[in-house]
Amino acid sequence: MNFILFIGLIAGFLTTVAYVPEVHKILTTKDTKGISLLWLMILLTGVFLWFIYGLGIYSLPLILANGISLSLIIIMLILKLKFH
Amino acid sequence: MNFILFIGLIAGFLTTVAYVPEVHKILTTKDTKGISLLWLMILLTGVFLWFIYGLGIYSLPLILANGISLSLIIIMLILKLKFH
Repeated sequence: MNFILFIGLIAGFLTTVAYVPEVHKILTTKDTKGISLLWLMILLTGVFLWFIYGLGIYSLPLILANGISLSLIIIMLILKLKFH
Repeated sequence: MNFILFIGLIAGFLTTVAYVPEVHKILTTKDTKGISLLWLMILLTGVFLWFIYGLGIYSLPLILANGISLSLIIIMLILKLKFH
């Protein structure tokens, strides 16, 4: 594996992991007041477009990180709609 | 400009904009209890590595978005250390 690909994979791991506390907080407290629907929609669209961009430039780190982040954001969105 | 570059720039704009409410909230309320130092450090490292990865693969959207996000995260970090 080349070095820059490795850097990208670590980057993707860290920024994806950064979503976990938020998902965990919502799951344990069932409180989604701190998260706005508009913010979730902006994030969902942004991360989806990063995923498409990753496919377009054949970037494995972008595809992996944004694919997993997308799943986490969809979980937050479902919980937001369910608990609100 | 090619289409995939355009997708990347829109993606970067949206995920960067997603940080703004958090920075604004900290600036107006001066309350940083909701943000953990560990989370900020993980995000800072992740976004910094995305920036390096962007330089490594010559990706303008990654360089721009993560460069600006990095500044916003550093602002949050300074405010966290200042108001805590």
